[in-house]
Amino acid sequence: MASPSRARRGAAARVPPERALTAWLAGFFPRDPARVPIGIGDDAAVVRCASRELVLACDPVVEGVHFDARTPRALVARKVINRNVSDLAAMGARPEFLLVSIVFRRGTTPRAQRQLFAGLRAAAGAGGAQVVGGDVAVADGPLVVTVTALGRLTGRALRRSGARVGDTLHVTGPLGGSRLGRHLRFEPRVAAGEALARLPGVRAAIDVSDGLLVDLWTLLRASDVPGAVLDAAAIPIAASARRLARRDGRTALEHALGDGEDHELLVAASPRLRWPGLACLRAARRPIGRLVAEPGLWLETADGRQRVEPKGWQHVP
Amino acid sequence: MASPSRARRGAAARVPPERALTAWLAGFFPRDPARVPIGIGDDAAVVRCASRELVLACDPVVEGVHFDARTPRALVARKVINRNVSDLAAMGARPEFLLVSIVFRRGTTPRAQRQLFAGLRAAAGAGGAQVVGGDVAVADGPLVVTVTALGRLTGRALRRSGARVGDTLHVTGPLGGSRLGRHLRFEPRVAAGEALARLPGVRAAIDVSDGLLVDLWTLLRASDVPGAVLDAAAIPIAASARRLARRDGRTALEHALGDGEDHELLVAASPRLRWPGLACLRAARRPIGRLVAEPGLWLETADGRQRVEPKGWQHVP
Repeated sequence: MASPSRARRGAAARVPPERALTAWLAGFFPRDPARVPIGIGDDAAVVRCASRELVLACDPVVEGVHFDARTPRALVARKVINRNVSDLAAMGARPEFLLVSIVFRRGTTPRAQRQLFAGLRAAAGAGGAQVVGGDVAVADGPLVVTVTALGRLTGRALRRSGARVGDTLHVTGPLGGSRLGRHLRFEPRVAAGEALARLPGVRAAIDVSDGLLVDLWTLLRASDVPGAVLDAAAIPIAASARRLARRDGRTALEHALGDGEDHELLVAASPRLRWPGLACLRAARRPIGRLVAEPGLWLETADGRQRVEPKGWQHVP
Repeated sequence: MASPSRARRGAAARVPPERALTAWLAGFFPRDPARVPIGIGDDAAVVRCASRELVLACDPVVEGVHFDARTPRALVARKVINRNVSDLAAMGARPEFLLVSIVFRRGTTPRAQRQLFAGLRAAAGAGGAQVVGGDVAVADGPLVVTVTALGRLTGRALRRSGARVGDTLHVTGPLGGSRLGRHLRFEPRVAAGEALARLPGVRAAIDVSDGLLVDLWTLLRASDVPGAVLDAAAIPIAASARRLARRDGRTALEHALGDGEDHELLVAASPRLRWPGLACLRAARRPIGRLVAEPGLWLETADGRQRVEPKGWQHVP
């Protein structure tokens, strides 16, 4: 919003409309002047952080990839902010500031633009973060919204590496619900991430964005651990994964293992970890599996143990 | 690069290719572990800033808007980084960290992707900044590259507001060269911005991105100053603006006044400012005009004074 850009085809109006938009946006997004001395409307923003150590994430959402043309723009806004906030949560960080770059499809109505802005404001507020700048452009192509999130650590940084053979595996909530809308409406696990980052026995964490098996495989590789055994009966399955299973012939467990964008945290912890009584960690207390020296991913069911591959499936349009 | 995304049409390969890309990018972009304890390859990056006060800019470039399909990808990369670095420079800030989000057009060759990455690495290095994270996606649409730049102040923050009637106007270099390629190859005025931010008589600054007249008008409105008189003979004109003028029938001065993306700094300063002998400020010493109480923009030539409108022209494909 600092310096909006667009194709300049022909002479501009006396007051270029993007200057008016910038002024409108500067009033639309709330600003705490103690933390944001200079916000939307100058060449760049100036912010005051809680510490010199910052956690940074930057992810886009694209029409046709992460949402479809009919998705309400307020939900598009919510998804792109929460995707980034979830990345911070997986590090144990709390969001503070957001920058938003929007490339609108040419011909987008002012009403649709305002719906997106309103969704950004609501999702930023829900996450306790301030939108401090960005840019608005127009192009002949799909809507692209890119968010950069800046956060701070209140404990240590939770990495993907650091897990060890013998660790137990945990998730912060049910999996498999993304295809029936949760990919737009998930709640980033900020409080759980902060709590986990303060527990000494927590060794590694990752945001479940590509699917439990794929993200578990990523955590193993980052940690240099050969394998993991998942306990099928212990994996929490979203109610909507069961509904979806009745329709599409896959099992609910398959959705829980393979569908991405649940945005729960997958955590490896020392088997000696004592879990405190924090409500935000209740879902994470029961292990869903453990890390092993045997290479590969294994699934234990009532029928025995079978090898599984780290696969994800498409879960967005 | 923390969590690459794309449409997942069909089952993924055993090692999803984006994980391999992330690992490659983590090695490709240099990282100073003292300032970037966690870089590309985790859920988010962790950086250590020089101070708690940060300057933030976030601008995209879009194929068909800011560059065309034939523009070498290394120059696209250079433009998007330098656009953001120039926004920092206009605040008096020095870049430290960059995040890059890329939406490749489906079917982009690995070679074209590598050219873009190489351009990002070169431009980041030239600016003294580190690429610490981001994302890579693929879509059916134009190439979109969005950069977030984080910088630090070494003096005060230079705002667009703060100019007063009686101030002199200055630019850090020649204008009007963008259409003949300078919009891809400009040098952001980081050293000049830092030097200006330490001079007590400098009152306001803005990056010339939309054209001298439009950006001057923006500075006036931000500063609540009614008008400005420009001295046509004092405005430094790029050699390429003269070449362009011989071709297209406009005057070189028109290009200097109206074409955007020169990315020089436009500065308002006290008429009592003593300019030091810094080489980076040599171009800025001679005033190109002054701020007046009379409303509007005025151009003084040998033929007298005429009113001009704050207009920009299209300067990119």
